[in-house]
Amino acid sequence: MREVFELDRDRVPTHWYNILADLPVEVPPARPAPPRNGDAEPLQPQLPLSMYRQSIGRERYVEIPGPVRSEYQRWRPTPLFRASRLESALDTPAHIYFKYEGTSPSGSHKINTALAQAYYYARSGVREMVTGTGAGQWGTALAMACHPYGMACTVFMVRSSYEQKPYRGTLMRLNGAEVVPSPSTRTEVGRAALRADPDSPGTLGIANAEAIEYANGRKEARFSIGSGENHVLMHQTVIGEEALLQMELAGEFPDVVIGAMGAGSNFAGLTFPFYRAALAENTGTRFLAVEPDACPKMTRGSYMLDYTDYSGVTPAVKMYTLGHTFTAYHIHAGGLRYHGAAPIVSAMYDHGMVEATSYSQTRVFESGAAFAKAEGLVPAPESAHAVAAAIDEAARAREEGAERVILVGLSGHGLLDLGAYESHLAGETVDVAPTDEEIKASLRLIESL
Amino acid sequence: MREVFELDRDRVPTHWYNILADLPVEVPPARPAPPRNGDAEPLQPQLPLSMYRQSIGRERYVEIPGPVRSEYQRWRPTPLFRASRLESALDTPAHIYFKYEGTSPSGSHKINTALAQAYYYARSGVREMVTGTGAGQWGTALAMACHPYGMACTVFMVRSSYEQKPYRGTLMRLNGAEVVPSPSTRTEVGRAALRADPDSPGTLGIANAEAIEYANGRKEARFSIGSGENHVLMHQTVIGEEALLQMELAGEFPDVVIGAMGAGSNFAGLTFPFYRAALAENTGTRFLAVEPDACPKMTRGSYMLDYTDYSGVTPAVKMYTLGHTFTAYHIHAGGLRYHGAAPIVSAMYDHGMVEATSYSQTRVFESGAAFAKAEGLVPAPESAHAVAAAIDEAARAREEGAERVILVGLSGHGLLDLGAYESHLAGETVDVAPTDEEIKASLRLIESL
Repeated sequence: MREVFELDRDRVPTHWYNILADLPVEVPPARPAPPRNGDAEPLQPQLPLSMYRQSIGRERYVEIPGPVRSEYQRWRPTPLFRASRLESALDTPAHIYFKYEGTSPSGSHKINTALAQAYYYARSGVREMVTGTGAGQWGTALAMACHPYGMACTVFMVRSSYEQKPYRGTLMRLNGAEVVPSPSTRTEVGRAALRADPDSPGTLGIANAEAIEYANGRKEARFSIGSGENHVLMHQTVIGEEALLQMELAGEFPDVVIGAMGAGSNFAGLTFPFYRAALAENTGTRFLAVEPDACPKMTRGSYMLDYTDYSGVTPAVKMYTLGHTFTAYHIHAGGLRYHGAAPIVSAMYDHGMVEATSYSQTRVFESGAAFAKAEGLVPAPESAHAVAAAIDEAARAREEGAERVILVGLSGHGLLDLGAYESHLAGETVDVAPTDEEIKASLRLIESL
Repeated sequence: MREVFELDRDRVPTHWYNILADLPVEVPPARPAPPRNGDAEPLQPQLPLSMYRQSIGRERYVEIPGPVRSEYQRWRPTPLFRASRLESALDTPAHIYFKYEGTSPSGSHKINTALAQAYYYARSGVREMVTGTGAGQWGTALAMACHPYGMACTVFMVRSSYEQKPYRGTLMRLNGAEVVPSPSTRTEVGRAALRADPDSPGTLGIANAEAIEYANGRKEARFSIGSGENHVLMHQTVIGEEALLQMELAGEFPDVVIGAMGAGSNFAGLTFPFYRAALAENTGTRFLAVEPDACPKMTRGSYMLDYTDYSGVTPAVKMYTLGHTFTAYHIHAGGLRYHGAAPIVSAMYDHGMVEATSYSQTRVFESGAAFAKAEGLVPAPESAHAVAAAIDEAARAREEGAERVILVGLSGHGLLDLGAYESHLAGETVDVAPTDEEIKASLRLIESL
């Protein structure tokens, strides 16, 4: 049985797909943050025009700039595999395919948008990119993307991750970035957080707020964000466009497409092109977003206006959220600890076009380890969420005796997360989730928006 | 400029190349170890017949068994890149190409022979593979290779590496292997080493000796070795055979081919097919083996009979060696700390058909970091030795104004070695090398063989 479905390099998509062209539901536009209590300045418009147009446009296909596509071609198309050994191990009639983004230079899908953003910013005269990163996948990608354009890169990294995953910092530094543990003393946001708690482990919200403040104070610097926004989701559709062609090679079409859900760029990148194809062919394909029990923005959050950063200086968007001050308990899948879901994915979920589910950390690592043993590839903890859901879908297929076709997004490798797997093997994985009261308290703070 | 030279999956070589068919020099056969002082039993013949034939055969091409080639096709052909950004950074007229084995499931070239060995052993009824590993690249590869055949895998891992690179152990365990820090109490060799030094950091020689003893005591178990032997070198020639086709795509032929030198399988795998082609076309291509200052078996060792393991239970072979009891000072490139050079490579070196050079750890990490920054890929510390030599060749090309074509073997990624890079960034890299007296003392012990 053929197990790898690869495309020639010249099949790297020439266009990104903009789902806004086909979506029969409204995605409310962002509402700029009003000046507030004075200690945080609203974020000034700062997207290069071409990227701003991408974020609000309705054009179905947007051409990928030549230099960006050339960069993609250094490792894309990424492989799509049939996980036949996992199928055997699960004794399931289901066919499980996975699209693997771990072969990228940064080790995850994040570099797909990092390269696009670096290109647009560099072309508009920016000399330094600034960002916040949680687990470090995004910071690594941005550091690598800045380098070809000679741009500096400053990354505020959540302190707890910085300490638990020191090698992520090393990788960013090797790629020329400056890495600052957050909260830091470099910004007012950071200093305030440290005044409140000198041992603060930090959050992605604080790291991003620091990055925004730091970038605002530097003339040729811009803040860049790795997920959530419309244009970022669009940049990731190279994944799904390739996977469509690869499933065609496999001679099948998925009954269900599964992706881990942080802010949504991984999930959207894989699923949106399949949404278009499923719509055209009326296949009844399901789309399943998988989040951690520790940060259940879709399964337990509310669909309301909220800020995308901790300080509330970004425009407010309507999304499924736990509140921008929500701080998830620590889990190893730092990339999924973000409080909100991308506005497009949120609107689709609200209209029942997307399903969501959540998993405990224990189930996630069990699934990741089972996958590694069967397929010889260690999924990132984030990606292992999708694997967990796929294993459940495969079990249901077995119970029902149904020949289900499952496509899973494997957004990155877990080679820098082996410490987390070691904890799992040692039986030390801890399951955490917010209480209803904690979620309610956090949401109460944004009711007035 | 095109930067990636990729081959279709169906171009994965159908045959390994046996350089013994073309070599105009004699490679003395191994001499079985005589029974000695009673505390170590000579190793019994244990290679499956097909692999034994490969180790002594003169057939130019040996067909790769279908199931092994199918496994290769899960990730091969590996990419060949033009390092044009490194060229720019070095301001050199040289063209630098690198063949990258880091895309394999195990992260290095080692899995090329692991899959072949697992196939032959499984077919001959073996149920458990046992080995020793230093840095862990080989143990990881063997663990992954055993799994498809349902074979158990036990890995004795040098204790100092086990403690410094805990994630390597995790990766092996995730792939179903049992990992035992060596010296251990499981074997007489290990117990003796612990009696002599309860805090012994271990060596690859001891780990292999433990693995041999442990395998000898178990009926359906066999000891497997990841480098040095003729058939192992041959299994790695898939690398060079692919690279030949890829250089053809690039429209160039290398003036010099450079590979890091542990026991020799990485070096041989890349260079041997080019040796054949260079001979046929009379290109005058040079072949450069790069070893660490800490373990200079070729540049400072002697060409004499020696054992391949610490206890001296293996057959003695004629090779460039520092003596089988030589213990290299700690360096991060654990895969290059082996005391001897493969008999075939040794014979070629002795006849001036191969050159050798050595590098300090500082130069190696400087080079690896420069490569990472330019190309976005972190080389394994072992591979970074080849990069260091390539950078020097490129500098010479600039001085001479010569358009030199350099091909470098990048045997693996350094994502599990970022701690070593962090030490480098922090200026804490230590340079070590044996004294002449230490080498003489070690060689004196094998003079009587």
